[in-house]
Amino acid sequence: MMMGDDVENGNLGPYLDRPRTFPNMCSKPYTPLIFRILRGINVRVLVILLFLGFGYVFYIGASTSPIIVFVFSVCIVSFLLSIYLTKWVLSKDEGPPEMAQISEAIRDGAEGFFKTQYGTISKMALLLALVILSIYLFRNTTPQQESSGLGRATSACITVAAFLLGALCSGVAGYVGMWVSVRANVRVSSAARRSAREALQIAVRAGGFSALVVVGMAVIGIAILYATFYVWLGVHSPGSMKVTDLPLLLVGYGFGASFVALFAQLGGGIYTKAADVGADLVGKVEQGIPEDDPRNPAVIADLVGDNVGDCAARGADLFESIAAEIISAMILGGTMAQRCKIEDPSGFILFPLVVHSFDLVVSSIGILSIRGTRDSNVKVPLEDPMTILQKGYSVTIILAVLTFFGSTRWLLYTEQAPSAWLNFSLCGLVGIITAYVFVWITKYYTDYKHEPVRTLALSSSTGHGTNIIAGVSLGLESTALPVLVISVSIISAFWLGHTSGLVDETGSPTGGLFGTAVATMGMLSTAAYILTMDMFGPIADNAGGIVEMSQQPDSVREITDVLDAVGNTTKATTKGFAIGSAALASFLLFSAYMDEVSSFAREPFKQVDIAIPEVFIGGLLGSMLIFLFSAWACAAVGRTAQEVVKEVRRQFIERPGIMDYKEKPDYGRCVAIVASASLREMIKPGALAIVSPIVVGFLFRVLGHYTGHPLLGAKVVAALLMFATVSGILMALFLNTAGGAWDNAKKFIETGALGGKGSESHKAAVTGDTVGDPFKDTAGPSLHVLIKMLATITLVMAPVFL
Amino acid sequence: MMMGDDVENGNLGPYLDRPRTFPNMCSKPYTPLIFRILRGINVRVLVILLFLGFGYVFYIGASTSPIIVFVFSVCIVSFLLSIYLTKWVLSKDEGPPEMAQISEAIRDGAEGFFKTQYGTISKMALLLALVILSIYLFRNTTPQQESSGLGRATSACITVAAFLLGALCSGVAGYVGMWVSVRANVRVSSAARRSAREALQIAVRAGGFSALVVVGMAVIGIAILYATFYVWLGVHSPGSMKVTDLPLLLVGYGFGASFVALFAQLGGGIYTKAADVGADLVGKVEQGIPEDDPRNPAVIADLVGDNVGDCAARGADLFESIAAEIISAMILGGTMAQRCKIEDPSGFILFPLVVHSFDLVVSSIGILSIRGTRDSNVKVPLEDPMTILQKGYSVTIILAVLTFFGSTRWLLYTEQAPSAWLNFSLCGLVGIITAYVFVWITKYYTDYKHEPVRTLALSSSTGHGTNIIAGVSLGLESTALPVLVISVSIISAFWLGHTSGLVDETGSPTGGLFGTAVATMGMLSTAAYILTMDMFGPIADNAGGIVEMSQQPDSVREITDVLDAVGNTTKATTKGFAIGSAALASFLLFSAYMDEVSSFAREPFKQVDIAIPEVFIGGLLGSMLIFLFSAWACAAVGRTAQEVVKEVRRQFIERPGIMDYKEKPDYGRCVAIVASASLREMIKPGALAIVSPIVVGFLFRVLGHYTGHPLLGAKVVAALLMFATVSGILMALFLNTAGGAWDNAKKFIETGALGGKGSESHKAAVTGDTVGDPFKDTAGPSLHVLIKMLATITLVMAPVFL
Repeated sequence: MMMGDDVENGNLGPYLDRPRTFPNMCSKPYTPLIFRILRGINVRVLVILLFLGFGYVFYIGASTSPIIVFVFSVCIVSFLLSIYLTKWVLSKDEGPPEMAQISEAIRDGAEGFFKTQYGTISKMALLLALVILSIYLFRNTTPQQESSGLGRATSACITVAAFLLGALCSGVAGYVGMWVSVRANVRVSSAARRSAREALQIAVRAGGFSALVVVGMAVIGIAILYATFYVWLGVHSPGSMKVTDLPLLLVGYGFGASFVALFAQLGGGIYTKAADVGADLVGKVEQGIPEDDPRNPAVIADLVGDNVGDCAARGADLFESIAAEIISAMILGGTMAQRCKIEDPSGFILFPLVVHSFDLVVSSIGILSIRGTRDSNVKVPLEDPMTILQKGYSVTIILAVLTFFGSTRWLLYTEQAPSAWLNFSLCGLVGIITAYVFVWITKYYTDYKHEPVRTLALSSSTGHGTNIIAGVSLGLESTALPVLVISVSIISAFWLGHTSGLVDETGSPTGGLFGTAVATMGMLSTAAYILTMDMFGPIADNAGGIVEMSQQPDSVREITDVLDAVGNTTKATTKGFAIGSAALASFLLFSAYMDEVSSFAREPFKQVDIAIPEVFIGGLLGSMLIFLFSAWACAAVGRTAQEVVKEVRRQFIERPGIMDYKEKPDYGRCVAIVASASLREMIKPGALAIVSPIVVGFLFRVLGHYTGHPLLGAKVVAALLMFATVSGILMALFLNTAGGAWDNAKKFIETGALGGKGSESHKAAVTGDTVGDPFKDTAGPSLHVLIKMLATITLVMAPVFL
Repeated sequence: MMMGDDVENGNLGPYLDRPRTFPNMCSKPYTPLIFRILRGINVRVLVILLFLGFGYVFYIGASTSPIIVFVFSVCIVSFLLSIYLTKWVLSKDEGPPEMAQISEAIRDGAEGFFKTQYGTISKMALLLALVILSIYLFRNTTPQQESSGLGRATSACITVAAFLLGALCSGVAGYVGMWVSVRANVRVSSAARRSAREALQIAVRAGGFSALVVVGMAVIGIAILYATFYVWLGVHSPGSMKVTDLPLLLVGYGFGASFVALFAQLGGGIYTKAADVGADLVGKVEQGIPEDDPRNPAVIADLVGDNVGDCAARGADLFESIAAEIISAMILGGTMAQRCKIEDPSGFILFPLVVHSFDLVVSSIGILSIRGTRDSNVKVPLEDPMTILQKGYSVTIILAVLTFFGSTRWLLYTEQAPSAWLNFSLCGLVGIITAYVFVWITKYYTDYKHEPVRTLALSSSTGHGTNIIAGVSLGLESTALPVLVISVSIISAFWLGHTSGLVDETGSPTGGLFGTAVATMGMLSTAAYILTMDMFGPIADNAGGIVEMSQQPDSVREITDVLDAVGNTTKATTKGFAIGSAALASFLLFSAYMDEVSSFAREPFKQVDIAIPEVFIGGLLGSMLIFLFSAWACAAVGRTAQEVVKEVRRQFIERPGIMDYKEKPDYGRCVAIVASASLREMIKPGALAIVSPIVVGFLFRVLGHYTGHPLLGAKVVAALLMFATVSGILMALFLNTAGGAWDNAKKFIETGALGGKGSESHKAAVTGDTVGDPFKDTAGPSLHVLIKMLATITLVMAPVFL
């Protein structure tokens, strides 16, 4: 893979000498090392290995709990289903050669970027693994660990192994998302020539494939780790570690996942938006050619960006969300079960795995419920694609509610508090309703059917300046309702849990936090379907790009345009969903952190008192971290986009034939520029996010040591985490909503309102859209990941602060 | 005053029928009721009343403490000095009739707006006073109050009286700021025809007048209240209230001041920026006429805005800063003195008043050190005005350091800890250095001599979009250094205080918080000079406008342009200073709030534990409040500006003669539109800020009551306050710096860089400037006030949450 190597070595020389147009860009497809090794093995050996693997999995599962066996079975069935889905998608035709060529160029660029990006990320992950190892070799052990004979070396190995597995799975989740989208896009374009419904179905099934893999992998990864530790540490035998302490060993997995997701989202987000902004600023604004026009030298880079930024990054993001949420809920379940002295605590611990197993089942049904029409020659869509997706969502959500009630009755019934399971199902319902309301609020603020976006569009008619002011105010205002909803749902879930009847030894109620955890699970109980809808967006967007570039008739473009518009809406709503779940999950991880600190410090750590000046400063620094991180993420896009603008301008000047289709633009050059710039730019914000909590914690630990404040470091980090979470949620809501609203205000004007395309209002709206791009697709989603990464890094790095 | 009445009654009818050009706008000047009453009284009676007043003041002063007598004397001397300054300014000529006419139109508009605005504010203040009265009549009393026989009714009257006095003084501070600026502007323009130095001197002395009045009034108001309560409640006699509890009775004064300042800043900020943005969008961008061109129908509204938005509002803002900071430091000083059982605590309590008395002295010297040149015929300035102002600042700051050391030795020396005063002087030094560093950081990020603004200007060359992205990132990034500086200064001041040797009964050190308070005082120890520099900006800006409108020769405009540019820099740096002191003051008020709650709840309230879900939600709501408030403030400007744009466009279309100077534009109509819109728009964000902490506190108090959580309301409000403070500081830094940087990036391009005026880069930079206007002059400064208002409202409204 020439291009990737060049980028990796920073050697852009060849692009200067040798203009590469897209037919020349095709090279042999890239496959990650692990897949290449698998392919190299004889099929029979592979089958034997597979059976051995299954055998191992079921053996440890059976030794642990029947619940684990159930989880394994569901995951394996859903993997089989995802193989069916991908075979179904790949069986579709790739359309005429010009489409296939473009698609290959996109695949080439995406895989090349993925290779170099994940190469960098894996080096950083290995380095970090060494750091973790050395820290854990010198850390204290908890009384529980000592009593179970778990030494420092074992504890260090467990954490590092979990971290690396989490990182690997997150990487695979990202790869799978991108792998299917670069193959599905051209098939969707091709199908759009025949029928809108078929195109929709292909996009949904392709999204469904990666959603099932991502969720399934998160669940099975944690289940395998849990069962392995259970068997290895001999949890069932007396005198060894208690099962309720097991989930704390899994935090490394969550940190590995969020570490990779952070860089995947940053690098991909910078890539996609720098290419998009750069392409639009010269193509649309200066030259007046349409979006995705083949004459634009940055167009392939833009289409590559959809895959690496939206598909790969969102796959890693949701993988990490689910992993973090499962682990934190397991920790809280274990802690609560221990406090309440529940005889068999495994139901409480394994509950999140079961919820997500059912998530796989109900989402699969939802995905499969979206079918193609029989008569594939009907070109006009019979229904609005949004309605079809919504129907599927309704099916999924109804089934999710039912299975959720079922699982609470199955796992959370305990004789100590016979009605507790009912309270917890209501918590789950709170979560599901919260998710629904979140989606509705996001839609209200970003859809042009409603007041806010229309007002924003109207403000474009008085100029660029008023459009930006109105967009910023809209974004800032849109934080209010979600915060109120989150507040109500945290309080109500907490009180439902609190009044569940579960009490500790002293008789005081203890179920509150677990109630919040169950609400979070309820919110994520349709995660696989949500992810499907999210993946649908970039695939449809890419398909539209391929249709435009291969100059298909307008009727085909119309179909992909409709799909693209629907994709924009689903993308925006998914972000609302992601931020809501991030808020709840961080709150849980925060509690887990306090438990972790108590257990290592061997003294109670129950309070984070912000009236202490140092702790207050920790909070100030936490909020500042969010502002600085957002600044660097946005600035990275701005800088990279400026490089693209200069390159595209240069090509238009040096090759005047491009505008008359007489010369081919040098797409490869733009791809290379964006790739190398985004790899360079992702380091600074990423490093900030990882280094600052560690440094702050360590400094205040030292300060606390000299001023006689025990646990000062841990307290300051706790405040940093909480303030960063709060500011992060608000900032992400602001960035996502403002970006989405600007995008749709522009689309609204393009429907012909306020002068339509080409008017002064439209130009102002395009400016807003450009500003919104890095907000909603780089900084915003990176903040989701950052919030959860901070929560997991503090858990794993706690020994540094103590 | 016709115009004011029309606006007040919402009756804009006359403007539709009767075009009013500025020569017709002159009406009899407006004087507030209180001044009119004073004028109505016979001079001899007035002199007698004055002497009686002085007599009373010195009587209660002498009965209280010699320190109070000193404070009174200094304040009275500085009032006399300010009368001298105003006489000196008014003795200057008003220039040719065309200048005087414009100036009268501005004065007319400003006084009309002031009248209606403060009419509305005073009605709201009276309403709020009733609410406070009724709350206090039902509140519990503290053990201290009971022991001193202070009943509910007395306590209620004291709080309400303090509130009303604070509100009145804040209103007068605003009026004074505006009164002098609408008179000085034309004198500066006139002087600019003769000499740059003389113009500078007039602007500085006019600013100095209002600065001395504002600071002096804050000091004397608190001193009178303190002394009156001291004498009235018989503090010196045994068995009555202790002197250390006295400062808590003053919080009403701080709340009154911040209440008025909030609405003054909101209304004025919306006014000034809506007019500015509206005038620029049509005048500069669409019609290509210069700023302040007499053909622009919104130009008078824009010039009026400088006075009501910058002068009046900033006067009220700084008044409130100083009042809040003095009161919180007095409370903390009292608490500490009581804990340490210091025999004569009045030194610790009255220390802030003395610091500000010296502030008046040293700032007066600084102001007077700026002298005109002897040869008033030299038109070319001999020195850069910034250098002259800096020289004055250096004089002031050196004297401030010396007097600060002197006052700490005088008042904070105690035999219990002989070296404590030295530690506290070092705290003061920390504050002074912090102020200096803050100013430097703000300059670095907003001055086009440095990297950030140059990068921002460069990003304009690739379009409107990249300019906005770069500006937003710059603003977000600029929060980092100030936060680090604040963190270091809080910690170091806290530790200097902690190690001062002052210990409580149990022997544990108690001086930490007071150390932070002393640092805040150090920061504000040159407040009067800083305010002078701040006031200088809008006066110079206005003078420039008058020069442009009366079509003076270019050489005169050049002089005012230089002064205007310097004014922009001083305005930006003052904001950095204001936000730094707001951060420190809020931290102090927060501690005072916890003391207040403990004393009313009769149980210790030492911790705000954000690990409790409800408390965490309080924090979430607090941060959200900042986002929503900023949203509404920006949106208000955007909406009002759109109205202006439409009106100006309409006038240009309906009166085509305007562009050829054949027809006069209808300035009055624009003034009326902006005035009525900004009065309407200030209500929503203002009400949000006042109502939400009360509602949140009350709701959680009720929730806590039913769920068995005592003090839940107070805790949730504490978290709300802390999170709002942190988010508010960051948001204000972001908004102020981004706005300042955009403004100066535009100015940098106007110097000829990157294509200069009229180029595409310049257009993009103008868009950035437009966006920055409401950021830096409406939302940002309103947030300074909001932060302190929240701290004082929670103090006063504490009974609602308990």
